[in-house]
Amino acid sequence: MTRPLRLSEQSLRTTDSPITELIYTAMRDRSLISLAAGLVDEETLPTAAVAQAVAAVLADPSLGRAALQYGTTAGLGSLRLALAQRLAGDFTQQPTAAAPLADALAARCIITSGSQQLLYLVSEALIDPGDIVITESPSYFVYHGVIESFGARVLGVPMDHEGMSTTALAELLAELERAGQLHRVKLIYTVDYFQNPTGLSLSASRRVELLRLAQQYSRDGRILILEDAAYRDLRYDGSDLPSILSLPGGEEYVVYAGTFSKPCSPGLKTGYGFLPADLHEPILHLKGNHDFGSSNLSQYIVAHLLQSGAFDQHLEHLRTTYRRKRDAMLEALTETFADCPAVQWNQPAGGLYVWLEFTDGTRTGPDSPLFRAARQAGVLVVPGEFCHVTTDQDRPRHQLRLSFGVADPPRLREGVRRLGQAYAQVTKQLQTV
Amino acid sequence: MTRPLRLSEQSLRTTDSPITELIYTAMRDRSLISLAAGLVDEETLPTAAVAQAVAAVLADPSLGRAALQYGTTAGLGSLRLALAQRLAGDFTQQPTAAAPLADALAARCIITSGSQQLLYLVSEALIDPGDIVITESPSYFVYHGVIESFGARVLGVPMDHEGMSTTALAELLAELERAGQLHRVKLIYTVDYFQNPTGLSLSASRRVELLRLAQQYSRDGRILILEDAAYRDLRYDGSDLPSILSLPGGEEYVVYAGTFSKPCSPGLKTGYGFLPADLHEPILHLKGNHDFGSSNLSQYIVAHLLQSGAFDQHLEHLRTTYRRKRDAMLEALTETFADCPAVQWNQPAGGLYVWLEFTDGTRTGPDSPLFRAARQAGVLVVPGEFCHVTTDQDRPRHQLRLSFGVADPPRLREGVRRLGQAYAQVTKQLQTV
Repeated sequence: MTRPLRLSEQSLRTTDSPITELIYTAMRDRSLISLAAGLVDEETLPTAAVAQAVAAVLADPSLGRAALQYGTTAGLGSLRLALAQRLAGDFTQQPTAAAPLADALAARCIITSGSQQLLYLVSEALIDPGDIVITESPSYFVYHGVIESFGARVLGVPMDHEGMSTTALAELLAELERAGQLHRVKLIYTVDYFQNPTGLSLSASRRVELLRLAQQYSRDGRILILEDAAYRDLRYDGSDLPSILSLPGGEEYVVYAGTFSKPCSPGLKTGYGFLPADLHEPILHLKGNHDFGSSNLSQYIVAHLLQSGAFDQHLEHLRTTYRRKRDAMLEALTETFADCPAVQWNQPAGGLYVWLEFTDGTRTGPDSPLFRAARQAGVLVVPGEFCHVTTDQDRPRHQLRLSFGVADPPRLREGVRRLGQAYAQVTKQLQTV
Repeated sequence: MTRPLRLSEQSLRTTDSPITELIYTAMRDRSLISLAAGLVDEETLPTAAVAQAVAAVLADPSLGRAALQYGTTAGLGSLRLALAQRLAGDFTQQPTAAAPLADALAARCIITSGSQQLLYLVSEALIDPGDIVITESPSYFVYHGVIESFGARVLGVPMDHEGMSTTALAELLAELERAGQLHRVKLIYTVDYFQNPTGLSLSASRRVELLRLAQQYSRDGRILILEDAAYRDLRYDGSDLPSILSLPGGEEYVVYAGTFSKPCSPGLKTGYGFLPADLHEPILHLKGNHDFGSSNLSQYIVAHLLQSGAFDQHLEHLRTTYRRKRDAMLEALTETFADCPAVQWNQPAGGLYVWLEFTDGTRTGPDSPLFRAARQAGVLVVPGEFCHVTTDQDRPRHQLRLSFGVADPPRLREGVRRLGQAYAQVTKQLQTV
């Protein structure tokens, strides 16, 4: 007789990501064109650069042994410093001012197993059941699952072309205060560079306003901003925006999360965070319990790629590749939906996603005729409703996330063509009915 | 004005490991001989083998790209199968029976960021505040910290030369049942091969009895056994013992945890677990939230080391090296404490530790005269009381954990000599008093 397992409350609240099934479907059937997964382009993966970096590290006896030994929980010092030096450019353009700033930033840095682990650790450090986390809506839904696993509620704030609406955020915070719920708000989560899923960035003035609101409403304790900069390096047009972290007062309120998965290699599983000084030790203690430090060899490889200039070289290459792929997708959308004014999408300046909307209300959910017709036509897309707060019954259900990460330009064009075919089929059926 | 951080309940329960400070002390002052840290021997780290493996992986375009791309949350299939094939030997010696068994085991395997992450995930999946985890006493104290961070109580069971006393365990379980606390018991944790800190292994008959007790007392839900086999490969004398997992009925009750940190390289940060079938999915979902899969490159390296035979070769070399170091420490102890019948220690057949006891009751705590005299003489050791359940006020305070992991034989001898000097000094002072 099998005795029942008794899972923890947290385990019972932990579910699978809604797109896991989509990703595995795409893996099983290679004839399908996946515009669903936010994976990176296979062809761009820097096998030669990594081979060179790892050979250099392991050829040096003392460096090689250090890379294969235990590291520290916070992560490799030289890597943290290199990251801090890059980030210091947000604060100042003066080299003399940058050096001490970088040292201070490095001391508050932690290397994690991808930025996902940083998001997890920050949530674990702050959230108790019943708490509230505010996110953009739509947002990075995998993180919503993390928040909910800790028993917190996700509240979404709508976006426009400047990113999260700070007017709506201010209204939400005021409403929570009136309802006596302000003390429950622990975090405001923003993917403020080329957001997943919309491709939108938070504008400079909104960044200032977001920080101001976090400060203003930190009456019952600090409301932190979790600034997820995962796509920051994947910029194809326009100039870089300084982080919220670098705004006056930002260091106390902002957790800045970065990763090498998107701009380099997911297989190295190396991310990082810059934390408010008083959050650093609590997170280190949690990380100590998780794994006492991420893969040391990966950290030495990444540090070498940064120091040798190979990372920046790779980034240039990557930007060219993805820019071309984005353009291919946008061109294909223009061609395919030329006669469909109800189909609208944005022109992302970076990242991996195009956000598409059917203003005629065409449903896009996993059981919708459109989604099924697209699947039938051989293209996988992510229903937009997956990206909204799933406890919100009124969430939009007529949007799609399209990723140009994985497929090459010809397949991107073909994928969009198939989507167009599915849309034509569905709307025709509707007209017939 | 700084607004107060509001940490979660779990974060407030999470503390630093008691030996972190010892490890950093040893790092800062290289004249100190550390018999404290359970790190592995620098000289043994397989830089050449890893360089070869990673070069081979990255030289193959499709393999190389796969290694640098996202993997699956469960981990690399070929690695899981290779691990399952090795473990299948515990169940059967018949090749025809082993193959289907290995397939079934691989399906319940998960690759983690060191075995520490597996211990964490299993605890997270099962433990709610107020629960109970039973461990050997003394035990691997870092894991005690994990248990306590989830709000559970650690209860210790004494050991003898056969490992955990199953008689004492039976009494404890009966007592918990009488007290109406049996439903709180979620896990029994055992480091059943060359335990940290005692070097003792759980005998074959005790393994059977431990499983039987877990089954018998699983009245209010399953009590799982967490079998931490971290040191299994570091065997210097005697023959291997089959895992508790492989005993009849074990697959339902046992989580088996293994690692490549001790027998290969901590810097690869690759561990693994074999889980009861119904625990596999809950753990995968948690792992998905943590990091959706451990460093893929590390997994490809480890898989290559296993397939090429380099891992087994390395293991032979490692066993020879550590056997020599163990012998050096044991010889030095015999010489140093020849005239001190009150100083007793065991002869470990594997692992990295010698457990030493002062039967004259000499205190060994961090503030004890002996510990300070040893530090003064230039040797760091781990107070035995760190390894016992720290909430137990009556825990023994006259023991020491000595590790022969890091130092080479001459320094091991010198470290033991310094410890002897400290002991002589302290006992002389006592006699003078």
